[in-house]
Amino acid sequence: MTNPAATIEETLQRYRGEVNEALAGYLEAGPAVPQRLFEAMAYSLLAGGKRLRPVLVLLACEACGGERAAALPAACAMEMIHTYSLIHDDLPAMDNDDYRRGRKTNHKVFGEGLAILAGDGLLTLAFELVARRTEPPEVAAACCADLAAAAGMAGMVGGQVADLEAEGRVLSGIDELEAIHRRKTGALLACSLALGARVAKADRSLREGLVQYGQCLGLAFQIVDDLLDVRGDSQALGKAVRKDASRGKQTYPAMLGEEASAVRAELLVQQACAALKPLGDRAGLLEGLARFVLDRDH
Amino acid sequence: MTNPAATIEETLQRYRGEVNEALAGYLEAGPAVPQRLFEAMAYSLLAGGKRLRPVLVLLACEACGGERAAALPAACAMEMIHTYSLIHDDLPAMDNDDYRRGRKTNHKVFGEGLAILAGDGLLTLAFELVARRTEPPEVAAACCADLAAAAGMAGMVGGQVADLEAEGRVLSGIDELEAIHRRKTGALLACSLALGARVAKADRSLREGLVQYGQCLGLAFQIVDDLLDVRGDSQALGKAVRKDASRGKQTYPAMLGEEASAVRAELLVQQACAALKPLGDRAGLLEGLARFVLDRDH
Repeated sequence: MTNPAATIEETLQRYRGEVNEALAGYLEAGPAVPQRLFEAMAYSLLAGGKRLRPVLVLLACEACGGERAAALPAACAMEMIHTYSLIHDDLPAMDNDDYRRGRKTNHKVFGEGLAILAGDGLLTLAFELVARRTEPPEVAAACCADLAAAAGMAGMVGGQVADLEAEGRVLSGIDELEAIHRRKTGALLACSLALGARVAKADRSLREGLVQYGQCLGLAFQIVDDLLDVRGDSQALGKAVRKDASRGKQTYPAMLGEEASAVRAELLVQQACAALKPLGDRAGLLEGLARFVLDRDH
Repeated sequence: MTNPAATIEETLQRYRGEVNEALAGYLEAGPAVPQRLFEAMAYSLLAGGKRLRPVLVLLACEACGGERAAALPAACAMEMIHTYSLIHDDLPAMDNDDYRRGRKTNHKVFGEGLAILAGDGLLTLAFELVARRTEPPEVAAACCADLAAAAGMAGMVGGQVADLEAEGRVLSGIDELEAIHRRKTGALLACSLALGARVAKADRSLREGLVQYGQCLGLAFQIVDDLLDVRGDSQALGKAVRKDASRGKQTYPAMLGEEASAVRAELLVQQACAALKPLGDRAGLLEGLARFVLDRDH
């Protein structure tokens, strides 16, 4: 009998490898692209990382009966948008971080001006990729619209603003904290599932179940992140720990306590898996991934 | 007999009014959008300005026999991308400007963090607008791809990087200067024409003629901009003048002299108008606009 945990990890690793290869191929250095800009974009995009969002696109597509290869452009677009958001969030005018994924942040290596532009370039390239390489055009247009809604003013960008505004004041409660995370990380995670479903031409009810899974998974992911910041070791994480507390950032463990936070994460993962019911047997890998997110140590 | 110059100005003003109204409608303050982010985006997007790019979209669409109203989403998307680029270019890490269109720059009012995010939000909203509101979906997808190519690493963002890199060193010649402007301003102007043609479902040859017009117009526009910086008065322009020289920025007048620059702009406008030949009689307004750009004093 195969060990299901090992199978999940192996699958994730294989899919991650496909994503990494595709990302390197999609980031093209044409004659009109300044060398230094290309380097700055590649530095952050090809720096490794969990590739959680693109892997979710691939898994959602397959769970809906689609071909994984058809979802690669949308998958890579998600990672480009995630990477751009990290580059901009790390800037001195925002979170002012010096390290990310174990390496110096983009602006520490390339300077602030180029880091801003590298982020802009990645955000833009994400849309080009989906618009040009997702088939058929109706699906491409719908994916572009989903992606923009999730990444924009009512999604990730809005969440980042709310997060900046929340620093240094007391949040009204766990609902306000969750409202920030729903936009800042949840919207993009949920969108990954939606894009996979769209590429597979899944019907609306399947897509909505997957989006709900993504929303719950996104919150669980954030709680685990907060817990790792309290408990984790910086070597495994590749970034500084216990930063949240030193910055007065409000987190799940700070508001609920560590134990209740862990319980909440567990509950959210159960909700996530329950939302996969319409998929039946094909939900296995997504369920496994949710468990994996809960149990990760980095 | 009507005065053709007056007709052009009246038409531009009417179209500009339609664009301004549509922009205000498309920028929606939903419950998930932080108030301050909305204000920062509206501050720069609804600050007036020439609205050259959106007007070009509308004119190109009509010149190809399309309905102006159908091109409004693409037109407004162009202006959002233009506005985002101005917000980011004005940042301290880039051109470090305090005034724009006669008012304080975005980061001077809202702070750097919010200005970066307001720019990110506008860039993202541009794609949502085109993807969601341009019909049919094949045209929406093609417009998103064009827009991203023009705005991205091989277009506007690449041009901005090349411009940053060129400061403080001597360019190899007018060709290098033009290669910067082709990307930094030319790509987006040419794209405006392409989108108008796409919305009107014009054939490829019409679209290519319009793009050529846009490329020539973009360079002419830049030369006139450089000349206004040397000759102009800051009140009419709404921004500081003679900044280029004080910053050691290389310009057409600095490289060619004022007179030869003016001749080159005139020649480019002639080339632009020649590229409109396939449109026959329907090219009138675009020809008028090219003249207008050449003769503007702000």
